Amino acid sequence: MDIKKLRNYAELIAKTGLNIMPGQEVVIRTEPEQTEFIELLIEECYKAGASNVSIEWRFMPATKLDITYQSEEKLSEVLKWQEEKLKYKAETLPASVYLDSDDPDGLTGIDNAKWARAQQKRYEIIKPYNDKMENRYQWCVAAVPGKKWAKKVFPELPVEEGMEKLWELILKCSRADGEAPMEAWKEHNDNLRRRCDWLNSLNLRRLIYKSESTGTDFNVGLIPDMLFCGGDEELPGHDDVRFNANIPTEEVFTTPMRGDAEGIVYSTMPLSYNGMLIENFSVRFEKGRAVEVKAEKNEEALKTMISMDEGAAMLGECALVPWESPIRESGVLFYSTLFDENASCHLALGRGYSSCLKEFWKYSPEEAREKGVNDSMNHEDFMIGAPDLSIIGVCEDGKQVQIFKDGRWAEM
Amino acid sequence: MDIKKLRNYAELIAKTGLNIMPGQEVVIRTEPEQTEFIELLIEECYKAGASNVSIEWRFMPATKLDITYQSEEKLSEVLKWQEEKLKYKAETLPASVYLDSDDPDGLTGIDNAKWARAQQKRYEIIKPYNDKMENRYQWCVAAVPGKKWAKKVFPELPVEEGMEKLWELILKCSRADGEAPMEAWKEHNDNLRRRCDWLNSLNLRRLIYKSESTGTDFNVGLIPDMLFCGGDEELPGHDDVRFNANIPTEEVFTTPMRGDAEGIVYSTMPLSYNGMLIENFSVRFEKGRAVEVKAEKNEEALKTMISMDEGAAMLGECALVPWESPIRESGVLFYSTLFDENASCHLALGRGYSSCLKEFWKYSPEEAREKGVNDSMNHEDFMIGAPDLSIIGVCEDGKQVQIFKDGRWAEM
Repeated sequence: MDIKKLRNYAELIAKTGLNIMPGQEVVIRTEPEQTEFIELLIEECYKAGASNVSIEWRFMPATKLDITYQSEEKLSEVLKWQEEKLKYKAETLPASVYLDSDDPDGLTGIDNAKWARAQQKRYEIIKPYNDKMENRYQWCVAAVPGKKWAKKVFPELPVEEGMEKLWELILKCSRADGEAPMEAWKEHNDNLRRRCDWLNSLNLRRLIYKSESTGTDFNVGLIPDMLFCGGDEELPGHDDVRFNANIPTEEVFTTPMRGDAEGIVYSTMPLSYNGMLIENFSVRFEKGRAVEVKAEKNEEALKTMISMDEGAAMLGECALVPWESPIRESGVLFYSTLFDENASCHLALGRGYSSCLKEFWKYSPEEAREKGVNDSMNHEDFMIGAPDLSIIGVCEDGKQVQIFKDGRWAEM
Repeated sequence: MDIKKLRNYAELIAKTGLNIMPGQEVVIRTEPEQTEFIELLIEECYKAGASNVSIEWRFMPATKLDITYQSEEKLSEVLKWQEEKLKYKAETLPASVYLDSDDPDGLTGIDNAKWARAQQKRYEIIKPYNDKMENRYQWCVAAVPGKKWAKKVFPELPVEEGMEKLWELILKCSRADGEAPMEAWKEHNDNLRRRCDWLNSLNLRRLIYKSESTGTDFNVGLIPDMLFCGGDEELPGHDDVRFNANIPTEEVFTTPMRGDAEGIVYSTMPLSYNGMLIENFSVRFEKGRAVEVKAEKNEEALKTMISMDEGAAMLGECALVPWESPIRESGVLFYSTLFDENASCHLALGRGYSSCLKEFWKYSPEEAREKGVNDSMNHEDFMIGAPDLSIIGVCEDGKQVQIFKDGRWAEM
């Protein structure tokens, strides 16, 4: 891939994605692939003002071997130095990049139950630090090609060719392939903000989803104090610092009312969960809780997913993406949530975004939960968009407004 | 490279290199290259009994950017969580692999003085943990090809071809290219032990080095209680655990008397120090201390090297390697100490090996220092072997024995 384009992309992540503040620390979480790009990204973070850029390497083949060979006790450990590190991050609030290049099948074959129990135990230690950091630092999820991921997306191509093609697609979908990606994102963020403004002017209390082609027939309550969000968001306490938590992003989303969802939704794309692909599945909700799940592939993983903790079976996000999103139009199934979620309306099971509450910075995590924001160690998006999807919004005064029609925005 | 050969090599490192004890933790320090081999090595470590295998990634381009962009204060920091990690390791004594694939020129152009001062400050925190761990855990330095390293060794070859050729050479020099590498190492360790037994039977007190072709004219005192070591060594407190700290190794070595060296030595190979190549250099000693250094290339780095701390200008190792070592016979200059030191007689400036003292486990680090073992944050080997090198040993009773003649063992 052309080095100038890669440098533009790195700068986009550092400035539009994170908007690094002078002297702020930066953490980059990444697989050990694309080291040339990582080098560019580190430099762009420093140039943007970082005082320190550290890398936290993830390596899925090692994780799979750990799960296979370690005792459950060892696998569940959070060592004292690891907890000290969490504490340091909760205190210093580094801007954080997550570079996704994961093999969508990377953990296939593991002992799901063992891994789930270990994650649950570890989360008991980790959660207080997560809660402490919530909404207080800039983060950005972006992607770089990985060999196994490229092979999954383009099985017919030689690996190197597939990698190159995936780079092209990532940059295109991320609006980073033009001359001035940061300018393009300014315009894109403005467009998403206009959508949000319209939705927020309606004062919605409920969304009703219907699609005959898939069978989806579902409705979900919204929190009175919620806002629809999309594009860049502000960092509380720093008026001038807005950041983009996802590159790419095409969605407008909110956090729904915990415990208020009824009906059934059908997936229209595979879900990559914990290194496994869950395919052709449905989720039926009663009183806000997923009470029945079915999947043609990896149903067991789906069942594990919704039983990780109390909130894992409840909703944390409703996101609206029109059928003609540029990512959908690429015609590619990415097997990566970052991309696939931006090609389709989706819901998320698990943790909600308290940042969707009006004046969210006033609320503690506990207060946000009380207002109806779901809590969980998970946040798993799954795609339910369809060309005939209708979404009707019910306003505070009972009036109904067509939000989506035939899978697309009904207005604007 | 053939996967079976790579797996054999991984097994060799896990079993012959580290000799992992059941339930022991393992740490692998590596650059983010050769991830396929790293995966094999992790698995072989687990199969050999490891309870946990963790990876500490090094990434030299990031280090270079850190040195360039961070303030000296930030660069000098050892954070509390990092110190907790050192403490954990000093308590649990994990078996440690260091996979070398460094770019020999990777830090060229940095601000040497800034980097040296930062390392000195960091070492103040790190040293007590290093001292606590000394001689109490198994470690093994081995190599895997890196792209920039391969390009340096084979500048005329396309990178992929150079990488493949470097793999072949690494496996050959490491006696890991045959059907049964672990058997080959058993025999190799026995041979090295026979050399040590002969040298130790002589009760040597001084070595006198001379080479007309290079100009080397130098002598160094030995510690009365010292032993020559080579090949595998024992882990104190675990009679049945012997490990090989270097793969490959061809040397028989000891730790000389601190403060007792006179004369001049001339390098016969470049020295890769801190990501820079120091070339065609000489070191003149007075009363055991390097008082004058000259180098055709990177003299400044050499001067920095010997001034890192008090012990950095004094000797920590005398190693004997015959001119016809298999690594020398490969005809390749590796620009990597692990290989080049095993192609040539060498000395090391800096920290000595207290494990060369008879019954070394009886001595604290301080007691070992008192007996004459040098202390430093550095340990930098440099090569002085030559085809006409003569080494004469002076025994306790004053008798002189020819140890090396014409660059080779004089006996056996």
